Amino acid sequence: MLDLLANKWAALAIGALEGGPQRFGAVQRRLKGVSPKVLTQTLRRLEGAGLVDRTVYPAVPLHVEYELTALGQGAAVPLGALRAWVEENLDRSPADA
Amino acid sequence: MLDLLANKWAALAIGALEGGPQRFGAVQRRLKGVSPKVLTQTLRRLEGAGLVDRTVYPAVPLHVEYELTALGQGAAVPLGALRAWVEENLDRSPADA
Repeated sequence: MLDLLANKWAALAIGALEGGPQRFGAVQRRLKGVSPKVLTQTLRRLEGAGLVDRTVYPAVPLHVEYELTALGQGAAVPLGALRAWVEENLDRSPADA
Repeated sequence: MLDLLANKWAALAIGALEGGPQRFGAVQRRLKGVSPKVLTQTLRRLEGAGLVDRTVYPAVPLHVEYELTALGQGAAVPLGALRAWVEENLDRSPADA
């Protein structure tokens, strides 16, 4: 599980879903620089770990939404603290790794 | 910086150094399953980002210690919360990803 959460895109995807269900394209726009392939893999791994639910609405075109499960909402708390720390401390780092 | 910290081995290495300076071998023993090559790369990246200090003591054989900088000690707080969350919630996940 740490393998999954200690991953930049997973951490950012969980953050992007904190506000509520989102379509794939909306998550992608929030994760600047992620490729569709990597985002698909990331969301599948989060779904497999029980952190994200994927719901398909029967419409034309298909409407698919991703949302955090209760477990995912729990994970969002420490991940949010980590992202906040990074944002606050970015300038103090000699090398922006 | 999130790229660096949102990485399993970096998160674990920072945790291993929370108790004080450690030699390479001691860090490696705490990070079960890490190869020397990956641990070397991880510690170099943490050093490059200003999170870890590497001190060489002139002795035979050379004695090298790694320790958290003040910035690294700051990062250890949210990373510790993330590791604690993972440990508490591992059993509730349908798939141990």
